[in-house]
Amino acid sequence: MDRSRIEAIQSYIRAADYISAAQIFLKKNALLTEPLKRDDLKPRLLGHWGTCPGINFTYAHLNEYIRTHDDADLLFVLGPGHGFAALQANLYIEGTLARYYPEAALNAQGLQYVVHGFSWPYEFPSHSSPATPGVILEGGELGYALATAYGAALDNPHMTIVCMIGDGEAETGPTATAWHLNKIVNPADNGHVLPILHLNEYKISGPTLYGRMSDRDLKALFKGYGYEPIFVEGVRIHQKMAAALAVSRTLFEARRKEAAQISSAGISSRPPIIILRTPKGWGGIKRLHGEKIEGNALAHQVVATEAHTDELQFKAVAQWLASYKFHELFDPEHGFARAVLSVLPEPNRRMGSNRQCFGGKSVCVDLLVPPTVRYVNKQITRGVSKASSMLAAGEYLRDTSALNAQNKNFRFFSPDETYSNKLQAIFEHTPRAWMQKIEPWDKDLSPSGRVIEMLSEHTLQGLLQGYVLTGRHGVFASYEAFLQIIASMADQYTKFIRVATEIPWRGSVSSLNYILTSPGWRQEHNGFSHQNPGFIDAMLQKHGCFVHVYFPADRNSTILTLERCLSSKNQVNLIVAGKSMEPEWLTPKEAEEAMKRGVLVWHFASDEDPHVVLAAAGDYLTAETLAALELIKRDAPEIRVRFVNILELSALGIGNEECRAEFTEFSDYFTPDKPVIFNFHGYPETLKQALFDHQDGQRRFRVHGYREVGSTTTPFDMHVRNGTSRYQIAKEAFELMSERGVITKEKATHNIEQIETLLTRHRAYIKEYGVDMEDVQTWQWKQS
Amino acid sequence: MDRSRIEAIQSYIRAADYISAAQIFLKKNALLTEPLKRDDLKPRLLGHWGTCPGINFTYAHLNEYIRTHDDADLLFVLGPGHGFAALQANLYIEGTLARYYPEAALNAQGLQYVVHGFSWPYEFPSHSSPATPGVILEGGELGYALATAYGAALDNPHMTIVCMIGDGEAETGPTATAWHLNKIVNPADNGHVLPILHLNEYKISGPTLYGRMSDRDLKALFKGYGYEPIFVEGVRIHQKMAAALAVSRTLFEARRKEAAQISSAGISSRPPIIILRTPKGWGGIKRLHGEKIEGNALAHQVVATEAHTDELQFKAVAQWLASYKFHELFDPEHGFARAVLSVLPEPNRRMGSNRQCFGGKSVCVDLLVPPTVRYVNKQITRGVSKASSMLAAGEYLRDTSALNAQNKNFRFFSPDETYSNKLQAIFEHTPRAWMQKIEPWDKDLSPSGRVIEMLSEHTLQGLLQGYVLTGRHGVFASYEAFLQIIASMADQYTKFIRVATEIPWRGSVSSLNYILTSPGWRQEHNGFSHQNPGFIDAMLQKHGCFVHVYFPADRNSTILTLERCLSSKNQVNLIVAGKSMEPEWLTPKEAEEAMKRGVLVWHFASDEDPHVVLAAAGDYLTAETLAALELIKRDAPEIRVRFVNILELSALGIGNEECRAEFTEFSDYFTPDKPVIFNFHGYPETLKQALFDHQDGQRRFRVHGYREVGSTTTPFDMHVRNGTSRYQIAKEAFELMSERGVITKEKATHNIEQIETLLTRHRAYIKEYGVDMEDVQTWQWKQS
Repeated sequence: MDRSRIEAIQSYIRAADYISAAQIFLKKNALLTEPLKRDDLKPRLLGHWGTCPGINFTYAHLNEYIRTHDDADLLFVLGPGHGFAALQANLYIEGTLARYYPEAALNAQGLQYVVHGFSWPYEFPSHSSPATPGVILEGGELGYALATAYGAALDNPHMTIVCMIGDGEAETGPTATAWHLNKIVNPADNGHVLPILHLNEYKISGPTLYGRMSDRDLKALFKGYGYEPIFVEGVRIHQKMAAALAVSRTLFEARRKEAAQISSAGISSRPPIIILRTPKGWGGIKRLHGEKIEGNALAHQVVATEAHTDELQFKAVAQWLASYKFHELFDPEHGFARAVLSVLPEPNRRMGSNRQCFGGKSVCVDLLVPPTVRYVNKQITRGVSKASSMLAAGEYLRDTSALNAQNKNFRFFSPDETYSNKLQAIFEHTPRAWMQKIEPWDKDLSPSGRVIEMLSEHTLQGLLQGYVLTGRHGVFASYEAFLQIIASMADQYTKFIRVATEIPWRGSVSSLNYILTSPGWRQEHNGFSHQNPGFIDAMLQKHGCFVHVYFPADRNSTILTLERCLSSKNQVNLIVAGKSMEPEWLTPKEAEEAMKRGVLVWHFASDEDPHVVLAAAGDYLTAETLAALELIKRDAPEIRVRFVNILELSALGIGNEECRAEFTEFSDYFTPDKPVIFNFHGYPETLKQALFDHQDGQRRFRVHGYREVGSTTTPFDMHVRNGTSRYQIAKEAFELMSERGVITKEKATHNIEQIETLLTRHRAYIKEYGVDMEDVQTWQWKQS
Repeated sequence: MDRSRIEAIQSYIRAADYISAAQIFLKKNALLTEPLKRDDLKPRLLGHWGTCPGINFTYAHLNEYIRTHDDADLLFVLGPGHGFAALQANLYIEGTLARYYPEAALNAQGLQYVVHGFSWPYEFPSHSSPATPGVILEGGELGYALATAYGAALDNPHMTIVCMIGDGEAETGPTATAWHLNKIVNPADNGHVLPILHLNEYKISGPTLYGRMSDRDLKALFKGYGYEPIFVEGVRIHQKMAAALAVSRTLFEARRKEAAQISSAGISSRPPIIILRTPKGWGGIKRLHGEKIEGNALAHQVVATEAHTDELQFKAVAQWLASYKFHELFDPEHGFARAVLSVLPEPNRRMGSNRQCFGGKSVCVDLLVPPTVRYVNKQITRGVSKASSMLAAGEYLRDTSALNAQNKNFRFFSPDETYSNKLQAIFEHTPRAWMQKIEPWDKDLSPSGRVIEMLSEHTLQGLLQGYVLTGRHGVFASYEAFLQIIASMADQYTKFIRVATEIPWRGSVSSLNYILTSPGWRQEHNGFSHQNPGFIDAMLQKHGCFVHVYFPADRNSTILTLERCLSSKNQVNLIVAGKSMEPEWLTPKEAEEAMKRGVLVWHFASDEDPHVVLAAAGDYLTAETLAALELIKRDAPEIRVRFVNILELSALGIGNEECRAEFTEFSDYFTPDKPVIFNFHGYPETLKQALFDHQDGQRRFRVHGYREVGSTTTPFDMHVRNGTSRYQIAKEAFELMSERGVITKEKATHNIEQIETLLTRHRAYIKEYGVDMEDVQTWQWKQS
């Protein structure tokens, strides 16, 4: 790299560093046209200076790289979102910001707008956010950048995703395992991921683990992870960085070449990782009150926090800001100097403008979904014929995958549970992605596989987010209990998508679709660790009508739910359904009606003018409740019962009136005044919080659901222990009906005693034989 | 290792392998005294065979090691809890099981009991659990073994924690970063952790990433992580394993020696990791129906699942079980053969009997807590004087640490936020643990530091669990939002502790104590990613009176809460409190009363016979609500108001009557019939689900709390956006009081208009000046 280019890059970085620092400190006088006064400072000094210079250094070099390589298509994922002041500075310089925020013009006024607006109420936030062009990761909660970058790279072979990872973020578990994605993602038909591990060596108040590792250990570690480490540090750092990018290109090309002819022996060439070591707060205040600032943890956040009142600090800030001589680089009328501008690629090739990050029609090709008619069962024998929702879902996903094979925009993700969740039909179309050795006896593995299995829910979630936010489509299926592992990531995603949909220039993206299966109700043998419906609750609490939780009661409903979720936009969808053989309840037409309304009176199981309503959400709970209904009718046919099935909670408007389906009136389903016994798939509390806002919810509803009971038991006893069994529901109905005078007290007592006897017999049977009694095992609906 | 010892070990393993397999398959005929019949098989075949032989191999060698090393004090942490059949087999052989389950005698009957009881209703589960002696990790949700093992090692210098990690588990993020704990945990005064990475190369249905890595990459990776990898595989595997344990000992000794004289340059010697490669399902069925079983994913779970109906499978199982010739190793009357027994250490030194795992007095020394009197402020000026709860908590933690310095049984854990959360006073007593290089300008770092900071919430949670379950005490402080990262781990822990307290032979352990600070209400500048009260909800849903969530309103309450939490046993405690300077409300005596009751009418802010109740939980919400109360009294002094502050939700019995404090009657606080406006720290839904079960909760309570609103704002505007501001609360009170005829409609309208004007003015001010208006910033209580 010749001297003049280095000088240009240095000018660029100087400008970016100044604008980064100015955003943190200056309310006015953004150009420092007058000597700095105390009153120019923001009243609250907020932001993180320490990581900014390294980001600016990197961004500048990436710009130069794009400019000098016609085929370069770079997307930038910034791990530490708190380095936003730097990202914003670069977006401003490259003019991307002005495209979306016209006030951010390239003149004195525009600069003032940007500098003032950072971390200012109703203006810009202090972190990367959906309001930032080019951003697909907020980065406020650390750890997810690398998996997100790999997700963006999937099926984008023309792209390179540059992922900057702070050495703080590198300490997180999700980052520590995402490195292994080079063993799964095939460079032959996916994009490259260029990780830049940024060692600025300090976190908030102390050193980082990676920052103090020896170069020898770092080299060994990343070699071990399967990368080729390239160190960029110390003297001649600009030349080293340029060389590192050139070497990276060569390594990527070699690896892609090898991948194109890969054998079952796997791939041996390594992708690069750049290990960039720069001082924390590089170029900022060196020392203050006798303490080392630059190159120390003290440079992490705002340096000189007392600048308003401490004369020494104020002077240090003034000198520091002046040291950039920004006036040399920026003209109040015409903007940036030629040297700065010379580093920029053509407008449409600038990283902040990468169209992959903006969603919408230009990047997001709608998913083709197979017509459900081929997958539903028109010939159900209600409550008698049986089917596995997941086996059917697997077929639907297989054909979805096939239908979109040309577009290469659909992927399926699962820890290592595709088989275990009975979704393996998808392997008939596409196997699992795998770049390591493949043995003759291995099944469903191939370098070109489109299913991604890795025993890291964090990694899968990151991949899916990156994939979806760059305009593609995906499904993440997991044991219900273990999605709770990524509750926090999903929280962050829902927060992101909520704000993103409010940004006018962000186009639609597809929904994030989860299948929660192998649910707790059938995990009695695996024990309490495999029973956790908490993820449902975490998502429902996100207060948005864009979160949908579906509880399809049978196979036909599952297929229709899948179709809706896969066709939807900007949502977070949870499909909660089991994998075992369960009764089929709804004809395709009825399932369609259930889908439309979200909630349905099942007329085949309901009387006119009911005394009591039985309600259920969830397939296992539905069957158990209908068995209860049979018991009630057997022993007290005079009790008029209605059965209501809830396919989608928020359709009722419970919890959030705004989300209610238009034709849904609460009392149409639950009557205006009759007691309701509700058998709910999740924690009873989840339903209770949703019912709280609803008229009379509290007085009329008895809520049953999953409770923490521990221990090993069997399917039927799971229900008994949790109070959701047919027996307990029937008992409660008898009690309520006797209270209301529908049946006599004597009759209720008699019926309840009978049920108690049955229960005792059942418990004894289970203890002796280890399985449910025959009549529970083979129970089928007799009413219709 | 001489031939005869290898033979003895082989006998031991044969016995253990047989018992492992028998548990999965046999309902009766446990000794195979008669030819196997179909009816001998369990009706449901459950369990995981694949990992068992490797566990048995390891356990046998560890036994031999203990037996031959008088100073060996080993605790065994099994990562994959689904390998329980193997663990149970070893516990049975070593007689530990019979200690706690007398039916598990060492004779034919006892064997039958153990074999039959595996994964059988009301008997043993299929996974490790608190009902298993020697277990401190359930291992159903993978990923937490290594951090747990390090936690058990802390302050146990006499011990070696052997941690077996499956190659499936190794793919998880939490495991991938926990390896770095060797950079923090000092071998000079802590125990050794011996990780055994068990490569059996397959997960449920495919290969593992680690299983297919080359030895070269594995070696580089673990060298990079700072370990000395020792491979055990292939021929002469017994000799290699024995040698590996011997080399490990040498490496540990060398490292401890170096650590004892460590300089600021850090430590260079490496602890060992054993990389053990054994075939999946080693010694089981080789092939079935033409498919490779042993050494393939097909051996992961139950092999030959159709043995009931498939003749070939049945025969294969029969042959396989017979192949162990178990009758040679076990006498129906006298139990195991001498060769098997010869591998066992003395009874009290057997791993399942390690007393560290049993809690109770013998291992758990009560924490000494400083008398609160020294930390509380007796001279508060109510609502005027200010204090930071976290600064005070830091001092209390500092002195707790000092008080227990001799016992070495207290640790403090935080991602990298001790300073940021203003808890840094603890560093006056003890710095952060650090084994890498220390620079002259570094602060609060030392190899002997007792505070553990690492930017991995997963690692900290694992450490704390391991530390607490082996009888010690700890506190985990974090930004409130980021505890959600470990929601799933904490879920698993609460499930564990719930069952553990029901096991008669498990003694008490101290509580798991969390401080949730830097809460969302003051994270307006960091944005929505830093706002997430979801962890509170995740914990409250665990349905146990052992989960406590405290919302101390001020510094005095915080100190008393800390004391209670640190002195408690077997609980999970969340202390939710801010770090900024906030008004002091309660004298020490009042705070004590609040602590006792969990909820308190604040008489200084309450009228007799109120028209309306204002209630708050949370420090920021309390101040805001009291400001509302002042507005109400200013504009309508005739409205009689009561103010109720909730320190601990479950003390009221809301959500769970069983948890109610004995003298707490709901209506004593909230009146029998008056409307209640509740300003809640967390999601409104969290309170709603808790109130649902309570009389009239739904009709009388208006619940305000954190809602997802996104964007950057200021503290005051956070409240406005969320509907928790003084203005909105006062407005609602005026509305309600006009509805109830306490004030005229005209007056209400007038007051509400005034408030609207104030609100508009405030918003404009914030937008212009970037901070709250002066009268919000400097607001103080005037009523008293």
